[in-house]
Amino acid sequence: MKKDLAVILLSAGMDSAVCASVANQYYRLAFLHIQYGQRTERKEGECFQKLCAYFKPEKILIAKAYFLKDIGASSLTNESLPIPTEETEEIPTTYVPFRNGIFLSIATAWAEAIGAKKIFIGVNQVDFSGYPDCKEVFIFAFNRAIQEGTKPETDIEILAPLINLTKREIVELGIQLKTPFELTWSCYQDEILACGECSSCRLRLKAFKEAGYQDPLPYRIK
Amino acid sequence: MKKDLAVILLSAGMDSAVCASVANQYYRLAFLHIQYGQRTERKEGECFQKLCAYFKPEKILIAKAYFLKDIGASSLTNESLPIPTEETEEIPTTYVPFRNGIFLSIATAWAEAIGAKKIFIGVNQVDFSGYPDCKEVFIFAFNRAIQEGTKPETDIEILAPLINLTKREIVELGIQLKTPFELTWSCYQDEILACGECSSCRLRLKAFKEAGYQDPLPYRIK
Repeated sequence: MKKDLAVILLSAGMDSAVCASVANQYYRLAFLHIQYGQRTERKEGECFQKLCAYFKPEKILIAKAYFLKDIGASSLTNESLPIPTEETEEIPTTYVPFRNGIFLSIATAWAEAIGAKKIFIGVNQVDFSGYPDCKEVFIFAFNRAIQEGTKPETDIEILAPLINLTKREIVELGIQLKTPFELTWSCYQDEILACGECSSCRLRLKAFKEAGYQDPLPYRIK
Repeated sequence: MKKDLAVILLSAGMDSAVCASVANQYYRLAFLHIQYGQRTERKEGECFQKLCAYFKPEKILIAKAYFLKDIGASSLTNESLPIPTEETEEIPTTYVPFRNGIFLSIATAWAEAIGAKKIFIGVNQVDFSGYPDCKEVFIFAFNRAIQEGTKPETDIEILAPLINLTKREIVELGIQLKTPFELTWSCYQDEILACGECSSCRLRLKAFKEAGYQDPLPYRIK
């Protein structure tokens, strides 16, 4: 039934976990987790392990991309820059330069090596922080680069099933697909209690509230 | 005079070194070297350091991308696969899946962080091993992905000045620009004497011979 293998970029945030649930309906799973010196790397790694125990993917790859910490220029990887707690019109400092370009490239290399046909990424351009590498035009352009830059006999395609959903719809989809939200982590800043103040916590809390569900994670401020 | 900064992907092979000489005419230099568990990593790292001493770039980044060794599927990163010494019609086993996609993504992230306008890569689609990520159509497609996936105020562009040169013309250009070929390394396999048999050695030896110059590197078989 599930013939083809798909690589799932699984940060262990709520979006990537819902994405894994979507992929799990149609594909054999290969989970890719990337550690890059972000503040909550340890917690995300723990959640990734728990999501692996839950979904039982056929293949697992944990890739270390610590050059992103050396490159810096982001409050996620440079702890001397504070995580913003206010909305902003501009691209916030939590933006990590071209992170999804790097993540999709690693996913493509792995997909080509293991013969996976699809790459799932949980990007969203509706309720998001304005990161340029989360937009659909970027995904389209990157798909084209993959077509040109991999072996002719491969046919690897990025799927971004959440790209045009609201955050509320993502929660609803996850509930419907029984995504284990209690095994995910979204906070940019803290690892024991989610801060409730960073843009990732705020987007998540708002989504659960609008969908009418209780977020199972513990928060410091809610 | 040289106003803008450019990131140069410098493996320390002959093509990337000539590329650095081209970039050095017009741009301030930021050298990016990537270690990925390839067979000749140590030698390439040494040559990179010597090229840094020669070119004196303003910025240097050495990025570790060892996930490429975990991904494998290439005789460059998996030492149980032999390096081929014969020509082949197919893409040879030395192809590393989507390596240039990964390298260009890292270069883009760094360029965005340091404000560089250009990324130089020494790919060539004339005398090459048939790798899909060395073709001009791939570079065009990747440029588009960079435009869409980075901040709107940035304008980062990949330049591939060697893309349509023959290997002989690359040697001639390097001689003209005084590229220090003695500080470069091309062999896929060995680190003391170049093997002279792998496709990278064969392309290099043929290029020097056709150009009528002596390759300064020591070879086991020539």
